[in-house]
Amino acid sequence: MNDRTHTADVEPGETVTVAGWVHEIRDLGGIAFLILRDGSGRIQIKFEKDEMDEELVETGLGVARESVVTVTGDAEEESRAPTGVEITPDSVEVLADSDTELPLDPSGKVDAELSTRLDNRTLDLRKPEVKAIFEIRAEVLRSVREAFRDLGCTEINTPKIVATGTEGGTELFPITYFGEEAFMNQSPQLFKQLMVGSGLERVFEIGPIFRAEEHNTPRHLNEATMIDFESAFFDHTEAMDACEHVVKSAYEGVAANCADELELLGLAESFAAPDEAFPRLTYQEAIERINATGDLDEQLVWGDDLPTEGERALGDDVGSHYFITDWPSEIKPFYIKDHDDDDQLSTGFDMMHPVMELVSGGQREHRYDHLVAGFEQQGLDPDQFEYYTKMFRYGMPPHAGWGLGVERLVMTMLGLENIREAVLFPRDRQRLSP
Amino acid sequence: MNDRTHTADVEPGETVTVAGWVHEIRDLGGIAFLILRDGSGRIQIKFEKDEMDEELVETGLGVARESVVTVTGDAEEESRAPTGVEITPDSVEVLADSDTELPLDPSGKVDAELSTRLDNRTLDLRKPEVKAIFEIRAEVLRSVREAFRDLGCTEINTPKIVATGTEGGTELFPITYFGEEAFMNQSPQLFKQLMVGSGLERVFEIGPIFRAEEHNTPRHLNEATMIDFESAFFDHTEAMDACEHVVKSAYEGVAANCADELELLGLAESFAAPDEAFPRLTYQEAIERINATGDLDEQLVWGDDLPTEGERALGDDVGSHYFITDWPSEIKPFYIKDHDDDDQLSTGFDMMHPVMELVSGGQREHRYDHLVAGFEQQGLDPDQFEYYTKMFRYGMPPHAGWGLGVERLVMTMLGLENIREAVLFPRDRQRLSP
Repeated sequence: MNDRTHTADVEPGETVTVAGWVHEIRDLGGIAFLILRDGSGRIQIKFEKDEMDEELVETGLGVARESVVTVTGDAEEESRAPTGVEITPDSVEVLADSDTELPLDPSGKVDAELSTRLDNRTLDLRKPEVKAIFEIRAEVLRSVREAFRDLGCTEINTPKIVATGTEGGTELFPITYFGEEAFMNQSPQLFKQLMVGSGLERVFEIGPIFRAEEHNTPRHLNEATMIDFESAFFDHTEAMDACEHVVKSAYEGVAANCADELELLGLAESFAAPDEAFPRLTYQEAIERINATGDLDEQLVWGDDLPTEGERALGDDVGSHYFITDWPSEIKPFYIKDHDDDDQLSTGFDMMHPVMELVSGGQREHRYDHLVAGFEQQGLDPDQFEYYTKMFRYGMPPHAGWGLGVERLVMTMLGLENIREAVLFPRDRQRLSP
Repeated sequence: MNDRTHTADVEPGETVTVAGWVHEIRDLGGIAFLILRDGSGRIQIKFEKDEMDEELVETGLGVARESVVTVTGDAEEESRAPTGVEITPDSVEVLADSDTELPLDPSGKVDAELSTRLDNRTLDLRKPEVKAIFEIRAEVLRSVREAFRDLGCTEINTPKIVATGTEGGTELFPITYFGEEAFMNQSPQLFKQLMVGSGLERVFEIGPIFRAEEHNTPRHLNEATMIDFESAFFDHTEAMDACEHVVKSAYEGVAANCADELELLGLAESFAAPDEAFPRLTYQEAIERINATGDLDEQLVWGDDLPTEGERALGDDVGSHYFITDWPSEIKPFYIKDHDDDDQLSTGFDMMHPVMELVSGGQREHRYDHLVAGFEQQGLDPDQFEYYTKMFRYGMPPHAGWGLGVERLVMTMLGLENIREAVLFPRDRQRLSP
């Protein structure tokens, strides 16, 4: 395809070949315009019917919307054209025809249901404001990785096919693995911990996780992309510092590099990277503040998990990203370490966006005996996890870390209503295809 | 853990707190040394038994190898110390004890079988030369992503749980997905193609793929990490250019940023990023050159796939990375486009390292009718892939791309004997844990 010389954001004054989709054809009688769209934007192609080769005019104006064409011609300044440039074509070639009936209108003039959009993601992503979400998502991943490099982390990949799940047999998708039962991993938790006991010390992974939860809400997915961090010789406060740095870096990357995309999403004015430190509330303070809002029918007491409406009330009250620390040990996973001076108080933390939880983390239990006891208290058989616990007998340093869902980060960053808008091909109970 | 002030590569002249693993204790009688190891290297801690607090000496010299300790003291120049610096401790604290019997010797003095190493990856990765492989792997991922950004690609994530596999039902791991049968995806092929028909145009993904092949060789894995690339308006030659750029960038990144790691692996002298263009041989030329080596018992004829020994013979002959182009259509997948002027000749290509295949790619079939016919010829039911083929009815541009296995790239780059050495936790027929 060496014939494409320019994208649609071409400057005037040259002979160019552009290639893209037929966005629209406007026929004004003696003159007609083909608006060609590609990844960079749109360009007007002018057809003066009486002055141009008949076959060229027929090809250019007879092609169905959303067909793929290449156009060669002179790009000239034209103040009335949408981009100030228009091409007078010498040749038009149709590379791929489109059916005239489209399941979805990529021009965005006709609204489509989310399920129709997801069934036709290819067409859906021809809309610049949908494409913008995924350009921003890519920038989030880029800037997050750069933040991890600032922190001296090594990128790792851990297996997605596992013999046992982090939290036991519930909420796991079973696989048949060469005749054996296995599972799709719901979290890299155990593997990343094994790595901080190695020479790597500080690691991150960005990869898929799989949760067989029967949730069906606008903020749950059964397959998601998780950003995982873990560091030796970190306590929970240092892990929170790292979390704050990474999340701020994602916002800063988008602010610096996605101006056009934010504009398309109507966020050019309102988008701002957080610059204040994220407030750190204890769980005790959190339930007191929720109770004080009066939004809940029943007052929360120590040991209650925070209900969704409680998170909302607190989020409205705090008005920024914030941490909730010092949770009751009983409602945090067994691999989270308790405070040394109070075994009812966990070093676990959550990092919250005003509308939902983004991150869960904590200092980990690195003492072999405590860890094995934790498995038993959780009703799990420590023998099944021997590949993991065994390594804690050979010098496992104190360590801490967290996991951050990419889709929730993008969803809250852009104010999307449904988490499925932040995934190309979401997986939920109803959706296994495309 | 705010008490750790320095890593082991400390400079003399300060009071420092270091933290790490007890690599070795050398007791010379009146004087003894604890060698502490962390991710940055090693540092000598000196104990003068008669001049120091008895408890301090007991703690420091009584601790088992591979235990985790913090040491606070003065770092001073000492020409006889391995790094030219030694610490005279004021305090030693044991953070985590190690059993004295280790399943694997992290000092590397006792060789271990690969299976023992993989069972005890945490300990295995305490060996600097093993850690070096994974630091290099992380640099490969970093520089590859940067190369994709040079090429104007958008990073995507596509689902790993799918209703149908790229090449049909064979070689897929079945999942139970909320009572329905689904599969773990063996390639992002179909999804990345759907994206180049959207506004994204040029995309890459680095993620896990799953293949239920019954291979059990030093160069096959059942779970691997794949680098996938796809671009609209690219033909196979442009896809090869992109491939060459990405692979060279990986080598250049490692050459520029991993000098210490290459040194540890004994590659400091021999490692070189390829600077010449990768030769492009047609399949016809390839079989002729293989036949000319006389290494095969039987001469290859048009239509034969290249046997492993044929690849070896040709690799020896060429002596560098190279492409094999213009394969017979019959031995390439149906989604690879044939040459316009010869439907027996495919635009598919492989990119080879002298010892094995690294990349498979080609221009894709973007014409709806041809694509559907291809499914049928392959014995697949096009209706099952309707979510994919349907989008080809609405303006799918010509496009090309390829897939590159991360583990094979790292393995060939570093001359590793077994692909499992390039994965933290490999998955094969025998290995599902850790």
